[in-house]
Amino acid sequence: MLSAVRTVYYISDGTAITTETVGNAVLSQFETVRFKHVTVPFVDSVERAKSVVTSVLRTEVEEGVRPIVFSSLVDPELLNIIESSGALVMDLFSTFAGQVEGELNTQQTHTSGRWHGVADKETYDTRIDAVHFALNHDDGQSTRQYDRAQVILVGVSRSGKTPTSLYLAMQFGIQAANYPMTSDDLESPQLPKVLRNYRANLFGLTIDPEQLTQIRQARRPNSRYASLSQCRSEVEDCEQLFRRFAIPYVDTTATSIEEISSKVIHTMGIERRLF
Amino acid sequence: MLSAVRTVYYISDGTAITTETVGNAVLSQFETVRFKHVTVPFVDSVERAKSVVTSVLRTEVEEGVRPIVFSSLVDPELLNIIESSGALVMDLFSTFAGQVEGELNTQQTHTSGRWHGVADKETYDTRIDAVHFALNHDDGQSTRQYDRAQVILVGVSRSGKTPTSLYLAMQFGIQAANYPMTSDDLESPQLPKVLRNYRANLFGLTIDPEQLTQIRQARRPNSRYASLSQCRSEVEDCEQLFRRFAIPYVDTTATSIEEISSKVIHTMGIERRLF
Repeated sequence: MLSAVRTVYYISDGTAITTETVGNAVLSQFETVRFKHVTVPFVDSVERAKSVVTSVLRTEVEEGVRPIVFSSLVDPELLNIIESSGALVMDLFSTFAGQVEGELNTQQTHTSGRWHGVADKETYDTRIDAVHFALNHDDGQSTRQYDRAQVILVGVSRSGKTPTSLYLAMQFGIQAANYPMTSDDLESPQLPKVLRNYRANLFGLTIDPEQLTQIRQARRPNSRYASLSQCRSEVEDCEQLFRRFAIPYVDTTATSIEEISSKVIHTMGIERRLF
Repeated sequence: MLSAVRTVYYISDGTAITTETVGNAVLSQFETVRFKHVTVPFVDSVERAKSVVTSVLRTEVEEGVRPIVFSSLVDPELLNIIESSGALVMDLFSTFAGQVEGELNTQQTHTSGRWHGVADKETYDTRIDAVHFALNHDDGQSTRQYDRAQVILVGVSRSGKTPTSLYLAMQFGIQAANYPMTSDDLESPQLPKVLRNYRANLFGLTIDPEQLTQIRQARRPNSRYASLSQCRSEVEDCEQLFRRFAIPYVDTTATSIEEISSKVIHTMGIERRLF
C-alpha cells in the first residue's frame, strides 16, 4: 500500500535554496499528493552524503515507497552516493551541465559552491550597498540621494513599497528608494516637489482598497487611516496621479514580491543582474 | 567559425528568477566560455513565445551558432513553440515534472504561475510581517519584542547583521532581530542586559578585521571606528564573548547572505519554510 505522504528530500552542497525552489515548483503541479519536505544543505563530504542515504533508506522502510530527491551536487562522487540509495534522484546540476557540455564541447570544471558564492568583492559590495541604500531611502525618510536611485517606488502607505525596495536591492543589487504618497501629496495637482526631477525613475504600486484596509487594520485598528473609505479614496487619488503623470504602475494585490520586482525591472528597462 | 560569445536565454512564464539562478549555476561550470545573458520573464502567451523565437533565431544568425535556452514553462504549448526555434532548450519544469509524473503515477495539472505566486494570504502576511519585524528590530533600535524573535543576530557594527536579518525575513519568513555589540558591551564580562533572557536565540556573526576596516573606511574614512586596530580589538572581544556564552557563530567574510542565512537556520534548528 502506498503511504499517504510522500517524503521529498532537497539535497545540496550549498544552501539548497535553489534546489528547494525548483522542487517546490515542480511538486506544486501535483496537488492531490501530500508531500513531506526534508531539506539538507551543505552536503559537501562523503560522510554527510552517506548520512543522507541512511535517512533516505529509513524513510523508504517507514513509508513503504522510495523517497523523491531533488539535488544539486557538483561533485559526481557525492551524487553517486546519493543515487545509491535507490530513490528517484533528480539532480539539477548533472541533468543540465551534461547537456551544456555536449553543446559547447567543453568539459565542466566541477567547481563546488558556485550557486550563491561570493563571486567577487565588487559584486558583494554592490549588493550590500544596495540594501543600505534601500534602508536609508525607505518611506521617504531621506530624499537627498534620489539622483543615485535607479527607481523610486511611489504609492500609498502599506502598498508594498518597503518589501519591494528591499527585494530589488537584495536579489538584483538595484538602488531602490521609496516614497509614500500622503493625503497632502494626493490632494495636490502637482507631483510632490522632491519627485519632480525624477519623473523618469518613478514606478507606482497600487493595491485593492479592501486588502489595504485589512493590512492597515492590523496595524492601527479602527483608525481613520485603516478605514475602507479612507483606503478607497487614497487608492483612487493615487492611481489618478499615476495616470496623470504617466507613471507606470502595478497592482500588488495577490502579487508576490518577486513578481512585483520583476515587473519593475522589466518595465523600467533596468539591466538585470542576479545575485 | 564559432562565435566568441554564446548567448543564453532565460525564459519563464513567471519572474524567471529561479530559471536564471539554475542556468547561472550550471554555466559557472564552464569558465572558459563567455556568455551573453538574455532574460525574458512573463512569457505567458503564444504571442510572447513567438516573439522570443524570433529573437532566438536572429541571435543564431548573428552568432553563427544556436543559442542555449533555460526555460520554465508550465504550458506545453508555449514550450513547444520555444523548442521550435531549434535552440538547445532545457526546461526545468518538463524535465523534472515528467519524471515525478511517472513516479507518482499521477498527472501534473499544468497550472501556471506557481513558482513565486502568492500561495495564500496567510503565507504572504507571514512574510511581510517578518520583513517589518526585521526592520523594526534592526540594529538594536527596538528590543521590546525580543520574545517574538526566532533569532537575534549579534555582532560588531558592519559584520553583516542587517542584510542577513532581512534575507531571513524575506526568503524564509523568519522573525529575525539584530543587536550591535558596542565597545561598552564588549568590555563587560556579562552579556548585555537586553540579551540575557534570550541566550538560546542568539547567533553571532564575525568577520575578518581586514575586511571590516575596508567596509568601515568606506562609511567613515580615517575614523577611529574604521581603524584596523579598533576593528581587530572589537572582533577579538566579540569572538571571545561568543565562546564564553556558547553562542554559535559564523564568519561572514567571503560568505554570501544566502549561505549565512542557511547556516543560521540549520544551526538554530529553525523550521525551514521557503517563499
